[in-house]
This record gives sequence, structure tokens and C-alpha cells, in this order.
Amino acid sequence: MPAFQPVRGMRDLIGEDAQTFTYITAKARETAQLYGYKEVITPHVEPLELLSAKSGEEIRQRMFIFKDLGERQVALRPEFTASIARLATTALKNEPKPFRLFSVGTVYRYDEPQRGRYREFWQSNFELMGSAKPEADAEVVLLTNNLMKLLGLHGYAFKIGHIGVIRGILSQDGIDEKTQNAILQRMDKKDYDEALKLVESEKCRAKLKGLIAVRGNDWLDVVEQLQSYVVGYEKAKAAVENLAEVLKLLAESTDLTLAVEPAFARGLEYYTGIIFEIYIPGLDIALGGGGRYDKLIEAFGGEPTPAVGCAHGIDRIAIALQTQKTALSAKAEKKVAVLPIAETMKSEALKIAQQLRAAGIRVEFEVMGRKMSKALEDADKRKVDFAVIVGERELKEGTVVLKDLANRQQSTIAIDKLVEKIKS
Amino acid sequence: MPAFQPVRGMRDLIGEDAQTFTYITAKARETAQLYGYKEVITPHVEPLELLSAKSGEEIRQRMFIFKDLGERQVALRPEFTASIARLATTALKNEPKPFRLFSVGTVYRYDEPQRGRYREFWQSNFELMGSAKPEADAEVVLLTNNLMKLLGLHGYAFKIGHIGVIRGILSQDGIDEKTQNAILQRMDKKDYDEALKLVESEKCRAKLKGLIAVRGNDWLDVVEQLQSYVVGYEKAKAAVENLAEVLKLLAESTDLTLAVEPAFARGLEYYTGIIFEIYIPGLDIALGGGGRYDKLIEAFGGEPTPAVGCAHGIDRIAIALQTQKTALSAKAEKKVAVLPIAETMKSEALKIAQQLRAAGIRVEFEVMGRKMSKALEDADKRKVDFAVIVGERELKEGTVVLKDLANRQQSTIAIDKLVEKIKS
Repeated sequence: MPAFQPVRGMRDLIGEDAQTFTYITAKARETAQLYGYKEVITPHVEPLELLSAKSGEEIRQRMFIFKDLGERQVALRPEFTASIARLATTALKNEPKPFRLFSVGTVYRYDEPQRGRYREFWQSNFELMGSAKPEADAEVVLLTNNLMKLLGLHGYAFKIGHIGVIRGILSQDGIDEKTQNAILQRMDKKDYDEALKLVESEKCRAKLKGLIAVRGNDWLDVVEQLQSYVVGYEKAKAAVENLAEVLKLLAESTDLTLAVEPAFARGLEYYTGIIFEIYIPGLDIALGGGGRYDKLIEAFGGEPTPAVGCAHGIDRIAIALQTQKTALSAKAEKKVAVLPIAETMKSEALKIAQQLRAAGIRVEFEVMGRKMSKALEDADKRKVDFAVIVGERELKEGTVVLKDLANRQQSTIAIDKLVEKIKS
Repeated sequence: MPAFQPVRGMRDLIGEDAQTFTYITAKARETAQLYGYKEVITPHVEPLELLSAKSGEEIRQRMFIFKDLGERQVALRPEFTASIARLATTALKNEPKPFRLFSVGTVYRYDEPQRGRYREFWQSNFELMGSAKPEADAEVVLLTNNLMKLLGLHGYAFKIGHIGVIRGILSQDGIDEKTQNAILQRMDKKDYDEALKLVESEKCRAKLKGLIAVRGNDWLDVVEQLQSYVVGYEKAKAAVENLAEVLKLLAESTDLTLAVEPAFARGLEYYTGIIFEIYIPGLDIALGGGGRYDKLIEAFGGEPTPAVGCAHGIDRIAIALQTQKTALSAKAEKKVAVLPIAETMKSEALKIAQQLRAAGIRVEFEVMGRKMSKALEDADKRKVDFAVIVGERELKEGTVVLKDLANRQQSTIAIDKLVEKIKS
């Protein structure tokens, strides 16, 4: 039988890769706690109707869709927000506002596999429900920044826009929502020419083309350009004001690098306000992003609920950590090998191993029945710190031999002093 | 639009339920570290061929099977072992033996939903590769015990058997492997009459019937009964000796409650040796289980590799914790609400919130723009410990108002003393 491989586009995380993922997940959870986001766990499989309702054509076409054995049309979640919005309309319907939810896990999209893009990938996800205020928008940017800092990443920049600027211009020129979605989809892919082709009115086309050119790192300057730009477009003007408020809060309360780009778009159709993404030099795909979606809960049958959220790509953050050669700040715990000298010593050796673990010490028990010299050689290779050698003669006196593998010293020591000695 | 519900048999974990799951997962990870098991992360979606090869008919019929957009036959993993065995034949083919692997996540089986049985459920999974020795078998039982102890569970018992006893008897009487599998499947469901019907030879049927009756909590007594029972059945005899060795190690090194039941069977077909499950009073489904599978790696195209493993049902452990009213030993961290007195104070208030979080303090920022009295009332309801009130007058003097919501006291305090004060 030829060896089995993972399904195309999916992968195994082993050794350091797995450690890195666990580490990033722990930092995301820490961020959630620092910002008051409560963890929720939703299924990886959801009704197709839920997932396809408001995600947008782009993502619908790349979902893993199937029928379960009860003929239900289901799909693997391509993102978290639809599931969280489902909660907001059901189990958490009566939860006092605001409430903040955190999730972490895998999501699925049938993309062409490439560096940082897998068909199964990991996200940490934050949603803030119930506030329409700019400080709520600012919060999801700030917590993303906090996560990056906790991870020791640097040099990253936030790209920030507002979906209401483009939609405000297009709708005032009578372009229906479906066409708007098609335009935004192309703009998300930076197919600006294709996007412009969908705009019939020449005036509106020129307006959109102009908007695409407005961008910069000086937020005040971009906002001023935009203000003169949207004169006469009431909805777009309100969007610019809202964008300016959020940018002001961010600029005044932090030292983020902000790349303001009002014409940028994201793959998901449900956004209604601020959108953002985070980039790091040397990696041309976003480490994360998010935005405001004030109509989604209502569209799913809930009360009108303003909401804003963001997600972080753990696979990409792992690449960023590698690129920046950021060391994981995990403290190295002492490792101990417990080695019985003879078969008859196994039960006693197992007992000692359990005592050490009860004190929080990491113990690998010798399960190969190897000769002492071979087992010690192997312990050395595995970078074990201490070997505890359990022999009959010592055991009768309540002692074992403790061998420090780093400095090659060994001593006979009372079993009840073992924990203290290893930890010192 | 009617509200969306989760897919039948799957569920959301919210509030305390989610906390409990995160807590159990953390304890499983701690156990893995204490025993030297390295974490690996494998895809939730695997080739159907891999998952169906050695799992057994019972599980094959309950898998979520589908085609991806590239027409690949895939399925949601019904357990972890097949994926880990895949690793052992590919990426970890040349890993020095023994090696120990830990995983945690969701698995999928299309069962009839009931208490403790969901179609998406959570497992922690441990596999020890490369050792055929009884101390390896003992290790997976001991680490399961360790996990239960870390979680504060009590009163549980291990049911232990050995698949080699039944198979040894059946094969010596010429019953082929397929029929053996069918018999074991019925025995797993305790359909003993149906199992016995599949045995043609009357002598063998009597033997099997006799075996089913052998069980007890005195392991030495059960082993003695078994030894006289398998006289003349060489393979079964060897299995009994192996079972006795493992039981001896467990009995001598711990104070586990052992229910020895040599005729018990488990749903998976790949087991070749010791099998075990763990039960707690008041819950008639196992909290976890495992066993030895010495032929699986070879069947997947790898080198012959003895292996033993176990998995723990996190959903069921959560029920057990609830049943035993076991408090999660999570320390309660202080929570702080940061409240700007006016719109103009928002940026400064955000700055202070970030300083507190940088010191590890959990902060909920006021994102509703509510009046102070309303925001304080809400903070009280959320059991926030302190409110930090950011006002213009105080800010000019580098201070804020700190309100202790537990004892209703408030004081004006320098911003740079805030962390110290809150943490004290």
C-alpha cells in the first residue's frame, strides 16, 4: 500500500510548527481575556443556508459543501462570523449589550494552495456586538495590535478603509446592491479595470477611479482629501466622518502605522462600515482583518444589532514569526527520564515517575526495556536534563541514582528529596 | 427569516460550557507535557481510504463522507489514530522510537444524538509508538488516571481487557478475521446472544460464553481463572500473560480501581492487545479508552511498529465534572471597566486601557457611550471589580478616579499608580 498523504491543500503540523500554533492560540486567548471577550465554541459544520446567506459569491464558490446522512445540506465553515451571528439571534438573543465573543479553530476554503494559503486554516476570531460607536471599531484594531505585540511581531501596518465610502458613491448613482457586490469583489482582487467596467455612468466611473487613487499614511491628509471628494454624496460623506472618528481614536491612543486606503474592499459581503487588514513586510497576504457589519444579525432574523469583528490567520502569523525569527517566549521546563535497572524494578520506577509528575516535572518513562547505556545515550539525544536510575540496591535504602546529563555528574539521593533536587 | 439552528447532533458551547472545554483541553495538554507527548495537529478532513481502511464497519457506516471540489473522496475524521498512523508512515517515518504524540480537537460520527453523544465531539488523544512492552500499555492507563486526577474527578474505574484473548480462542477454532470482527462488534454492543450465534462450533461457543462470564475487580483472581481457562489455546494464553503483566504494573504502582473484563470489546477493529475504558458512577458511557494496535502502521505501508494509544471524550468529561460538581480551579482575575466621562476623553481613556492590559489586567472599555451612572450599573451586573473613570479635570493632573465596585469606595489616583493599586 502506498503511504497516505493529507488531502490536497491541508497539512500536518508537527514539532515546532505545532508548538508555534499552540503558542499563537494561547496568545490570542490571552488577548481575548485582556479585552473581555468570552470564548464560545461553535461547530465546524453549519447549515449551508447559514453560511451562504451573507458571505458573498466569492466565498460561496469555494466552500466545502455536502449532505450529511440525514440529507441535510451542510458545509464546513469558511469563517466564524456567520456562526457567531447565528448565536446572537438564538442562544444569546437576550444577552445584554455590548457582548464580546472570542473563538479559535479551523475554517475551510477551496483555494489554490500556496504559501500561507491552505484549504484548512486556523483563525482566532473576535466579535463585539451591540455598539455602533467608533470606539468599538477602534477596539478590534487595538486588540489586533495587542496580539501582534504579545507575539513579538514588529514592522506591521494596518490598512484601513470604509466600505460605506464606495457604496455611498455607487448607490447615489443608482447602482444596485448586486452590481455593487460584483464591483467590490473585483476591487478586493485589485482588478480595478474590471471593477470600473461594471460602472455604466461615466461620471460615477471617474469618481470611483479617483477614489482608488486616494490613499496614504497621513490619516489627516487622507481624510481632508476625502472630505472634499465626497461633497454632495451624503452617505459617502457620513462614512468619511465615521472613518475619521475611528482614525482619530487610533492615532491619538497608539503609535500604530496606519495606511488609509478608502477604496479597499474585502471578500465578505456583509461589511457595512470600517474595514481593515494587517500586513507585515515580506508577506503579501494579510495576517488578519475585519470590519463592521451592522445588518447581519437583522438579516439572520435577529434584532437590529450593530457589530464589528476581526479574525487573525494563525497560519500566516506563524510565517511572520518565522520570517522575523521571533523566538517563542516559552520557558524550557526540565525533562527527566526514569529508567528501571531491571524488569523487577518497573513498578517501583513507575511509582517514582508518577510522584515526579505530581510535582509538575516532565517525565519520559523508559518503555523500550533497553540496557542502561543505550537508554542514557537516547536520553542525551532527546536533550533530557536528568536521568533517574531505579536500582534494587538503592531502592532498599529509599534512594535512587540521579544523573545530571548536562554536566555528567551523578549522585545517590533519597527519593523524597528528588523533586527538590530536580527543581533546584 | 426563521432563526438558524446548529446542524442536528452538533452544538454551541457558550459561557461556562466553553470555559469547561477550554479547561479540560488545558489539563489534557498539561498531561501530555508531564508524560512527554508532543503535540501534533492533523487535518479534520482526511482521505476516505485512510479513515475507512482499518476503523471497522461500525464506524465506516457513521462517517461524514463527501467529495471536495476536486472530486477527492474525503471524510471528517471519526477518530485521531488513523491520522497519527499516517504521520508514522510518512513525516515521522524516521523518528527514533519510542515517540509520543498528543492531539486535541473535534471528531465526527453520525450517531443518534443523546446525552454525552454528539455528532461533533471533542477528544484528547495520546499515542505511544515503538514499544511492545507492558509498561507502554500501563503508561496510557496511567496518563488517563493522571488527567482525571488533574481535573479533580474521583470514583472512576478502569475496565480492562485484552482483545487477544477472544481472538486467540476464535482463531484457534478456525473462525476467519471477518467473522471475528462481526462477533467483536456485537460484543462491543453487549449483544452477546447475537455474537454467540455467529460461532458455528458448539465447543467454541461454550468457550466464548464462559469467557464472557469471567470478570471481577480482583485482578489476580481474574488472571488465575483465565489461565486455567485458556489451557491449550496458545495465542489466547500469551494474551492472558500479557494482560497479567500490565495489570501487575498498574496494581503495584497505583491505587486504580480496576475492573478486569477480558471479553469486553471496543468499536475499532485495529486493536491487537490490551484495551481499556474509563467509567464514572452515574454515567453509563465511557469517559475515554484506548488500547494496543501493533499492526496498523504496517497495514498503512510503514515499518512494523508496535503502538498503544488512548483518547478521552471531552464532552463526557464535562458532564462528569458537572455531575461531581467539581469546581474548575481557575483563579479569578480582576476585571476593570474603563469609562471616559465625555466624548473628548475617549482617546485618553483608550490609552489608559492599553496600559492596564500591558500589565496583564483585564479591561472592558465602555463602547456604548452611556452615561456614567448607567455604565457603572452595568459594570456592577457584569461583576467588574474596579471602574476607572477618566475625566478632564483629573486627567490634567495626571489622575483618574478609581472606584472599587465591591466596597463602593472611590479615590483619585495617579495614572502611574493605577496598575499597582488594582493588582494589590
